[in-house]
Amino acid sequence: MSRPVRIAAVQYEPRVGELEYNRSEAVRWSREAAAQGAQLIVLPELASSGYVFGDDSEAQRTAESPDDGALVSALGDVSAASGAYIVAGLNEQDGDCRHNSAVLLGPEGRLATYRKLHLYNDEKSWFVPGASLPIAELPFGRVGMIICFDLWFPEAARALALGGAEIIAVPTNWVASFKRQVYDDRGYCQGDYIAMAVSAQNGVAVACADRIGTERGTRFLGASIIVGVDGWPVAGPASKDSPELLIADVDLDDVARSRSRTPRNHLFEDRRPEAYNASVVSAAAAGRAVK
Amino acid sequence: MSRPVRIAAVQYEPRVGELEYNRSEAVRWSREAAAQGAQLIVLPELASSGYVFGDDSEAQRTAESPDDGALVSALGDVSAASGAYIVAGLNEQDGDCRHNSAVLLGPEGRLATYRKLHLYNDEKSWFVPGASLPIAELPFGRVGMIICFDLWFPEAARALALGGAEIIAVPTNWVASFKRQVYDDRGYCQGDYIAMAVSAQNGVAVACADRIGTERGTRFLGASIIVGVDGWPVAGPASKDSPELLIADVDLDDVARSRSRTPRNHLFEDRRPEAYNASVVSAAAAGRAVK
Repeated sequence: MSRPVRIAAVQYEPRVGELEYNRSEAVRWSREAAAQGAQLIVLPELASSGYVFGDDSEAQRTAESPDDGALVSALGDVSAASGAYIVAGLNEQDGDCRHNSAVLLGPEGRLATYRKLHLYNDEKSWFVPGASLPIAELPFGRVGMIICFDLWFPEAARALALGGAEIIAVPTNWVASFKRQVYDDRGYCQGDYIAMAVSAQNGVAVACADRIGTERGTRFLGASIIVGVDGWPVAGPASKDSPELLIADVDLDDVARSRSRTPRNHLFEDRRPEAYNASVVSAAAAGRAVK
Repeated sequence: MSRPVRIAAVQYEPRVGELEYNRSEAVRWSREAAAQGAQLIVLPELASSGYVFGDDSEAQRTAESPDDGALVSALGDVSAASGAYIVAGLNEQDGDCRHNSAVLLGPEGRLATYRKLHLYNDEKSWFVPGASLPIAELPFGRVGMIICFDLWFPEAARALALGGAEIIAVPTNWVASFKRQVYDDRGYCQGDYIAMAVSAQNGVAVACADRIGTERGTRFLGASIIVGVDGWPVAGPASKDSPELLIADVDLDDVARSRSRTPRNHLFEDRRPEAYNASVVSAAAAGRAVK
């Protein structure tokens, strides 16, 4: 048995505030990915608006409705025409609230909206954090979403996998916040390694679509990656600074196999929730040796 | 301010059933690491007994008391003579129960015993799983322990970090259970990448001491590694098949900095426990689009 799915992660450069340009780039890349047979296409975080807002008014001016905003409508058309499912980062205006969101669009319309749980730095000024981790059941498999900094919180991806996700789509805008090293000698950044670990620990495919370029002094890292369900990359990492369309075929029938590392082990069933708390039991300074 | 600590991870080849040989190797390597100034020395999983038992009787015959067993006593002498703290994998006999354990020994005696929570494959025949994650406060910092397959369960390392651990010592016996790929082109194995992610997500140093060699057809992977508190390796990965003593200096004052990725972010305080559950909210097959 086999459940193949072709996944695309698109790396390019949105421009802050240039809604029309960003929309046309999102449409162009999604069409290109669909033309190459991609069934699930992942675009970067805040693909609609760009990232480094100058002030709240710019963040507000560049926000869109997830129901009938221009980006969602345009990508919905691509999806309807191609049959591909598209995950796109959206500066989402929902009533009075703004969210750093990822929408999952299909020929049926919008299937899920994920609002970033862990806001990074100035995002805390522009956005209200989300409160849930939706999963959508697509024809080829179940898809969950997280965004960028969420990867640094292992609980989020774990919850998606335990909830049934087989693919985790990660729109991202990775930045250089790690002073000692940003890339290693192979051009992997820290997000790539975390994506690999998330896959290894959960038996899920992880598709990270990063952006490139510099906005108002903030440089983005590229190095987009698609990781298979067994912890090893199947496409990427992409370059640090060039547009790139990553495409990979993943067999979701391998999800079950990757979670049963031996006939006697299962990455979920072997969990020990009752034991997952730790405390200091001994102190050398006091010379106290305890069992 | 600075809180430097010199950490050693020792990679060598224990032999199943050869208790005296294993003890002498553990003592020899620990003395060597202490002579090079290591303050915390990590030895492989089941360093006392070897790994691939032929049957329960061999597992039983090679088990030792954590109180006055030969390995614990011998390494306790090394610790008392050198002042170094030693984490060693122990086939532990405690009353009627046998555990795959790691003991933390200091000049004061045994400071903590960790019993592996997630038993791998045939270990389920030989050992009773543990139920807790102890942390010891040492003169240079707080140390927790996990063993090998525990790395595939992000909750364990997370619990240690949230409980106060600054260094996670990982005695391990990594084996090749990942069919598509065991090492990448740089000689990293999957355990190395998970150790890097654990460090990045938790702001802890991770010291993995793996073994080498083949026992009864089971090959061990080497590739021991020490990861700094910021997700990047500071020593290793070691070779696939040669004994190696990894030594690295880590400044535990960087733990706090590595957990505050920006002035507005903290890897622990930004957690969203109330949101960490996921469920299917929409199904494309049924054509249902939900918010």
